Amino acid sequence: MAENHIPLTPAAQYGVLEWIGREYYDLNGTHYDILNELPSPLEFARLVHIARPVLIKAGQMPHLIPLWTNEYLIRRMGDREISIAATPTGRADAITRGPDGRLYFAEPHIDKMTMGTFLDKITSCRAEARSADNEVYYLQSQNGNMYTGRYFELTSDPDPSEFEPLREDIPSEITWCSEALDRCPDAVNLWIGNSASITSVHSDPYENIYSVIRGAKHFTLFPPTEGWCLMERSYPHARYARSPTTSRLELVPSPPATPEVRWSSLHDPTDSVTLPSEAHPIHITVRAGETLYLPAGWWHYVRQSEVTIAINHWYDMESRGASWVWLSLLRGLRDPPSGNGDTLHVIDRALR
Amino acid sequence: MAENHIPLTPAAQYGVLEWIGREYYDLNGTHYDILNELPSPLEFARLVHIARPVLIKAGQMPHLIPLWTNEYLIRRMGDREISIAATPTGRADAITRGPDGRLYFAEPHIDKMTMGTFLDKITSCRAEARSADNEVYYLQSQNGNMYTGRYFELTSDPDPSEFEPLREDIPSEITWCSEALDRCPDAVNLWIGNSASITSVHSDPYENIYSVIRGAKHFTLFPPTEGWCLMERSYPHARYARSPTTSRLELVPSPPATPEVRWSSLHDPTDSVTLPSEAHPIHITVRAGETLYLPAGWWHYVRQSEVTIAINHWYDMESRGASWVWLSLLRGLRDPPSGNGDTLHVIDRALR
Repeated sequence: MAENHIPLTPAAQYGVLEWIGREYYDLNGTHYDILNELPSPLEFARLVHIARPVLIKAGQMPHLIPLWTNEYLIRRMGDREISIAATPTGRADAITRGPDGRLYFAEPHIDKMTMGTFLDKITSCRAEARSADNEVYYLQSQNGNMYTGRYFELTSDPDPSEFEPLREDIPSEITWCSEALDRCPDAVNLWIGNSASITSVHSDPYENIYSVIRGAKHFTLFPPTEGWCLMERSYPHARYARSPTTSRLELVPSPPATPEVRWSSLHDPTDSVTLPSEAHPIHITVRAGETLYLPAGWWHYVRQSEVTIAINHWYDMESRGASWVWLSLLRGLRDPPSGNGDTLHVIDRALR
Repeated sequence: MAENHIPLTPAAQYGVLEWIGREYYDLNGTHYDILNELPSPLEFARLVHIARPVLIKAGQMPHLIPLWTNEYLIRRMGDREISIAATPTGRADAITRGPDGRLYFAEPHIDKMTMGTFLDKITSCRAEARSADNEVYYLQSQNGNMYTGRYFELTSDPDPSEFEPLREDIPSEITWCSEALDRCPDAVNLWIGNSASITSVHSDPYENIYSVIRGAKHFTLFPPTEGWCLMERSYPHARYARSPTTSRLELVPSPPATPEVRWSSLHDPTDSVTLPSEAHPIHITVRAGETLYLPAGWWHYVRQSEVTIAINHWYDMESRGASWVWLSLLRGLRDPPSGNGDTLHVIDRALR
């Protein structure tokens, strides 16, 4: 985010961030609001200003809960091929040890298959929710797989979707959110996975409305003010690919010119042993028919306890005012050191 | 604000604040929105989230512009005595050199007089808008002189006002603001003064709606991110009092146990010679029938060009979330040094 770095020593930097994190926690604790009904645009505008997570025990798409059976999804999608993330670990977009012993930010391999094949892989599972080929499949393309911002620009090209037949079931925008923010969504995504898939802890510069249709999502959340506890480091990029001979997934480091990826070094932020004591996780389970407001910049780690279907609407955060500067300050004081570097033990000590 | 100070050297502290100020200015410039109509609650909630000043070319109380003549005000107020700030300089609540040569934060003397006497003093003026006794009078009690928060607490004691007869003219709250913020005002104040009165640069932790009824207010504004340019220092407290012998106003230092006051050292922030180049003032004139939204934490210096009547509605800022931490960070990194101290030249050099 921040291109100009503050001229601070690492110790002074952590002093500032630790102070901010403590002041914020002293004021807010781990409280989050629970609403029993969907908010009005005005109510939601107030919540966006507070920028704390909100669990809404109501859904924007209650009609989908009885409608979206496996049979229905398979029938509607037919033999269209959809993009599914495949990993041997269930951890796409996560820090992973490569064949050379170094740590990489690993992107998944993308397999193309029908909805029927995909649902069969994630529902007929063996131990640890693995599919029969011992790989983990997750519909998580998160590129606006239902709708992208182009959909709302009437003058531009059409916005194709692999999930075109499901569009009539899913509202392209959430009216109370669009009105509160005075904008259309930037992306709407469909997510389908099971308990073998885990989303590593990260943050997005988007206001996020997460609607669960089936199953349950278990979120572990941290405010932007505790991002410094999550040990962001710089990692080389890699991607899973199928071996031409065995067709097994192998992690393939990207060419050296590929930019490194800044990512949290915490494998499991629910593990209190590795989590710095200055971090105060908030655990929220979002069940079918419920909705989570996840404010821009909040860190989230997400698991599922069974086959889970969710839709999220991403809206650009407000760029005017101080919000962007605030998130830049909290994340961007300085380029993080290499996650594979010699100084790791020094930085870790400074973090404690 | 902040009771726990970040362990930073002054140079590192200014490094952080300068970085924040530059990033904020690069994103926002000196732009402010101008609305031609009063906003809806939802529109205003969005503006509060952006937290930039907004000039609204419409007023909440257009009926007062023809109604509030001097004759009307005098007739309605009769011989009630009202509290008027009196100073020899026109600068109440400002840094002033005392009889001992030291600098003080000077509060005004409060004279009691009728509305008729007061309006006569500020309208029949000699050179520099001084009254016949060469003193400057300003109705600026700013203690909720029209309504305090108690007014809205139905169960508590009544909320007396020196201006009770004018209450029926003035709405106790501004509906689009109360609905946007989901709260009642904390204070509603009447301000009447002329060009001899100047409000020194300061900030308040309130969302502020400023309605001009007569004349014009000239605001010089700085965002919270440029507060570090305004050279806050710690000053001993003093108050003007009338000499028992001459009845002239004299500045009387308060007892040494009186807490010092943290205040900007800039006498005139419109003077580009003394203003640090990192500060970017925004000049907004608010005329009769217009309204200014001044977001919480914004620094403001205010002049008037003629006899000016205004009403302001102060609302508590949102305390949940990060806003308070953000303002604390920008103001409270460290107790400011003494404005009379030996280190002034050192700190000033660090500021440039």
